[in-house]
Amino acid sequence: MEPAYRRIAAVYRDKIASGELAPGVRLPTEHEIAEEFGVVRQTVRSGLGVLVSEGLIVARRPYGYFVREWERMLYRPQEKSRPMPSRSTMDRFSQQISDEGRVPSMHIEVALVQAAPDLAERLRVETGATVVIRRRVRFINGEPVNINDSHFPLDLVKDSEIMSPAYIPRGTDEVLADLGHRQERAVDEIFVRMPTPDEIRRLGLGPGTPVALHYDTGYTADDRPVQCTVNVLPGDRHRIVFERRWRADEPLS
Amino acid sequence: MEPAYRRIAAVYRDKIASGELAPGVRLPTEHEIAEEFGVVRQTVRSGLGVLVSEGLIVARRPYGYFVREWERMLYRPQEKSRPMPSRSTMDRFSQQISDEGRVPSMHIEVALVQAAPDLAERLRVETGATVVIRRRVRFINGEPVNINDSHFPLDLVKDSEIMSPAYIPRGTDEVLADLGHRQERAVDEIFVRMPTPDEIRRLGLGPGTPVALHYDTGYTADDRPVQCTVNVLPGDRHRIVFERRWRADEPLS
Repeated sequence: MEPAYRRIAAVYRDKIASGELAPGVRLPTEHEIAEEFGVVRQTVRSGLGVLVSEGLIVARRPYGYFVREWERMLYRPQEKSRPMPSRSTMDRFSQQISDEGRVPSMHIEVALVQAAPDLAERLRVETGATVVIRRRVRFINGEPVNINDSHFPLDLVKDSEIMSPAYIPRGTDEVLADLGHRQERAVDEIFVRMPTPDEIRRLGLGPGTPVALHYDTGYTADDRPVQCTVNVLPGDRHRIVFERRWRADEPLS
Repeated sequence: MEPAYRRIAAVYRDKIASGELAPGVRLPTEHEIAEEFGVVRQTVRSGLGVLVSEGLIVARRPYGYFVREWERMLYRPQEKSRPMPSRSTMDRFSQQISDEGRVPSMHIEVALVQAAPDLAERLRVETGATVVIRRRVRFINGEPVNINDSHFPLDLVKDSEIMSPAYIPRGTDEVLADLGHRQERAVDEIFVRMPTPDEIRRLGLGPGTPVALHYDTGYTADDRPVQCTVNVLPGDRHRIVFERRWRADEPLS
């Protein structure tokens, strides 16, 4: 027979999957569940611990366990390929969040780092070569949402405003274009994995929250990679969307 | 001071991140690590257990712990928008895997199910309406790789070969087109979460392996959704890639 803690996990997993327990709803107390299943509280804790690590519920001491609420922002890499409205004083993220009546903010840090192998490969520089990194953490209403770390070959951007840890409303793509490195093509790569301790800390991730790693590498018309942005997107906060058209002779909408 | 099990986890996490311990390499034994840190074996087990749940190492009894090896197949939703070579006797997945000198296979099951809310919304049918589901699990060299569950409104596909649990080399998109439901546009949505127990079983997933859920919803020229495929892509086996072109007047390559 299945151990009691697993039966408890299975029963509550099903109640959540079926919608009987809706997002945000409080589960019965450990004491109540222990009575119902005829087990000690430690067994209940083990069973609910399974659901916490699966990302289905959260423990909010001293209030109890709650069905996890998902609020996923729309994340559209293709938006980046569209021209920004020339009157814009905000970047796309800030505009989108403001339009929703919420408060966007951002933390920016600029550093010179040695290219790790993943970046070196994408930027076609030697591993260990110096690259400029603009590290950004974006917030909605003060809560961290995602990380966007943009990497540039140093010789392309030195002496430009990309080196300053200030907000660039028109975006770094426009700065690169002004410097003669206009991007015409990009490759989006998405990897899925558990977060690192550093990502957990920077993004305040709860247990059972995997991340998507989105590498956005931009190329010029003569096929030189001029930037690679590594976006860390917590699974509980993002819906990644692309659109496709079937016929090759039609532009991407 | 940090507990010993965490220090052990941090030391080995760093060795893996830096590449000092490469994928596939065996870690020192529990006994050796216990001696090095001056702790009991249970503490070593707790420390390495953290790295197992992070997906960084695997325990292969009785051989020990190994740095996890990632073998990620290229997964390109945009390929679906390109015409299939007319001489093809294999679907794209099978072709790709065969070209790599590996053996593709597939398990297919067809069923009538009631549309869950996520599917009902995307297919614009009532929740609980009957839909046809083609459940496929794909394998490489006998190992499960991913799940592709395609859903169709029953009235569109009844009496067609989509209802038969047999391999359709030209693909279900072509069958739909022959039935008068040619798709011209698709929306790709990607969600990231921990796997369900059912997915863990069907795909043989190890600890610390999150999945991407890729919903591919196809629309006709008059904007009717005619199929929605839910792809479950284990993070350790996929690299999801899209390409974009910057100028709106250029076709998507």
